[in-house]
Amino acid sequence: MRILVLGGDGYLGWPTALHLSRRGHDVGVVDNFARRQYDFEMGVDSLVPIARLQRRVRVWEEVSGLQVEPFIGDLTDPTFVSRVLVEFRPEAIVHFAEQRSAPYSMIDQKHAVYTQVNNVVGTLNLLYAIADVDPSIHLVKLGTMGEYGTPNIDIEEGFIEITHRGRTDVMPYPKQPGSFYHLSKVHDSHNIMFACRIWGLRSTDLNQGIVYGQETPETKLHPDLATRFDYDGVFGTVLNRFAVQAVVGHPLTVYGTGGQTRGMLDIRDTLACVELACLNAPAEGEYRVFNQFTESFTVAQLAQMVVDAYPGRVDIDYLDDPRVEKEEHYYRAAHTKLLDLGLVPHLLNQVTISSLLAVADRNRERVDPAAIRPTVHWRSTASTLPTAGSAPGTGRDLASEASTDS
Amino acid sequence: MRILVLGGDGYLGWPTALHLSRRGHDVGVVDNFARRQYDFEMGVDSLVPIARLQRRVRVWEEVSGLQVEPFIGDLTDPTFVSRVLVEFRPEAIVHFAEQRSAPYSMIDQKHAVYTQVNNVVGTLNLLYAIADVDPSIHLVKLGTMGEYGTPNIDIEEGFIEITHRGRTDVMPYPKQPGSFYHLSKVHDSHNIMFACRIWGLRSTDLNQGIVYGQETPETKLHPDLATRFDYDGVFGTVLNRFAVQAVVGHPLTVYGTGGQTRGMLDIRDTLACVELACLNAPAEGEYRVFNQFTESFTVAQLAQMVVDAYPGRVDIDYLDDPRVEKEEHYYRAAHTKLLDLGLVPHLLNQVTISSLLAVADRNRERVDPAAIRPTVHWRSTASTLPTAGSAPGTGRDLASEASTDS
Repeated sequence: MRILVLGGDGYLGWPTALHLSRRGHDVGVVDNFARRQYDFEMGVDSLVPIARLQRRVRVWEEVSGLQVEPFIGDLTDPTFVSRVLVEFRPEAIVHFAEQRSAPYSMIDQKHAVYTQVNNVVGTLNLLYAIADVDPSIHLVKLGTMGEYGTPNIDIEEGFIEITHRGRTDVMPYPKQPGSFYHLSKVHDSHNIMFACRIWGLRSTDLNQGIVYGQETPETKLHPDLATRFDYDGVFGTVLNRFAVQAVVGHPLTVYGTGGQTRGMLDIRDTLACVELACLNAPAEGEYRVFNQFTESFTVAQLAQMVVDAYPGRVDIDYLDDPRVEKEEHYYRAAHTKLLDLGLVPHLLNQVTISSLLAVADRNRERVDPAAIRPTVHWRSTASTLPTAGSAPGTGRDLASEASTDS
Repeated sequence: MRILVLGGDGYLGWPTALHLSRRGHDVGVVDNFARRQYDFEMGVDSLVPIARLQRRVRVWEEVSGLQVEPFIGDLTDPTFVSRVLVEFRPEAIVHFAEQRSAPYSMIDQKHAVYTQVNNVVGTLNLLYAIADVDPSIHLVKLGTMGEYGTPNIDIEEGFIEITHRGRTDVMPYPKQPGSFYHLSKVHDSHNIMFACRIWGLRSTDLNQGIVYGQETPETKLHPDLATRFDYDGVFGTVLNRFAVQAVVGHPLTVYGTGGQTRGMLDIRDTLACVELACLNAPAEGEYRVFNQFTESFTVAQLAQMVVDAYPGRVDIDYLDDPRVEKEEHYYRAAHTKLLDLGLVPHLLNQVTISSLLAVADRNRERVDPAAIRPTVHWRSTASTLPTAGSAPGTGRDLASEASTDS
């Protein structure tokens, strides 16, 4: 199957591309390196050194004999998007190419506007290009479980049957997202559903939970195939960040009481889910939603699991929650559709956490402890970060890149 | 009360500003003249001649002795937005300043992207500026009944109580909008609700039906106080367009069977609703939704009412529906909150329709019959309009303006 991976240079896009390549698909990757640019802007770096995309692709071919075709450009450029679709002729497009950090979107007005414009316009351009070039292309779009928020009823997979004043209809599940980033994905979901309706496109919206882990069978084959690993207060996600904090002797930073419950999944399950979605395309005109996570945990539970797994002493620091979110809440979310397609989850256990701790330990000298604390506060309209007030993506000339390319 | 009217040069913004001014409020108007620019781009013009904003403001002062303060600029410029709020210090902001035509948003990729970026970024900038300058400012935002689509259950005012698997919660009403324009308003609604939650802002989202009528007590005081009146296939709304078609002997263009049911209201009720919302502000942090319409009609009913009211012969032309929408559907939508605040509706009757026909008749020599037919088709990604493929708002240099300013 011909599959194009958008955001194919990123944390999940790159290992997804390798996984699909090894599974026998013809894979192209598209990236504008925005994620690497955010590193320059924030003054942070992936914990694990990462090679440049061109090098990664060469190493993959050396190691596997398989080719992954790179396309360098920006989805907000509609001419580029159409050109890539015409040249590569994908049967499925896996769309990871969005700004994906909630704190980054909450830095200030410029970062909120950047996040929504970048994400919404990129996806709009993609929908138009698919409709123009080949409406049968299956768009596999990465959404987030954060689109739903934390309602006091069960979360379903995208749609809910509502009986109201004696009548019944199946409606889109109401969304109550918690950041301008999460909102951008809600906007995307509405736009995609509409495009499927008017143009007969087919799309799967993968509302993904929080991903943990860094190694996949393919990225382990060579150091230059490694994917990035973020632990900082802006891009670091909860379990990955805890592993790094434990290793460097930093208290685990739990926001509020830690009662926030979130759906989680292993990075290897992301790869499997994406392939399952590609292999089982929806019908023409169908917009469907899968909730892509395997287990739910509270933040406090995750912290305790890291405390238990780490051989040394680990403290927990309960910080005032920088976000506006419920710290204690009901949470029960359906996630059976991917299991029905055959997903066999990697559940979170001591082995997984130990492997995460080992990744962190091997790279402990690269940790910048100053980057760990939360610097973006939801109740404030502007953070005190040096980047606040400047437009994102304009630091290219100022940046000096620490290359890991050989 | 100090009230700023955004989009104060437009069809509803201008008469709203006059109404609020005559009712004793201190009124400022903000506009970037995008709506006049669309006329140049599309090669059409308001049926009723309209004076320039600066002239309108002068005439209003001559006629009424009251001042309306104009601010010329664009909401997508955050510096401008903040400056206006600091200078004018409004207690309420009435936000009409969005691209409001569904067909315009469906012309092609560029117009879809323009509509969503213009509307979403303008409103985001406004939310940030309110939070920074004065979070107590009440944002009265114009949404649309089209955000809801046509579900098979009753439409409520913004929120719905859902009981699901034995638990109950009050949730945002699910949205199924029917164009990239309507989608932009759904995106706004989500963004505004979130801003109220994190920053304690107060906002009323007025989900307005289709407005008919052109004259208000204030605009009738002088020809240069008239508001615009659109009858073309892109910006003309249903009843106004039918009135013009009847007068020039053009068949009424009903899309599909005409079974589409929509909430409607008289232009004078828009003015009253907006003032009622301003005078009854929500609490700090509260996001509330009013459905702003007074009656529901099918398109076929509206056409028949025009046929019955017009003294001459009127034909009806049932066109293939250029939109993707249900032509026959259930429709029952709540609209009690504005009535509870004291709204006394002007219901649609023969007098109203005759007055509309009279406006059309007085300006019949200005009608361009070529502009009436629908030119934008939802199932196509690009219309055949000359403007398709060019970025909106760039026609300024090419346009030769037929000024009505003296």
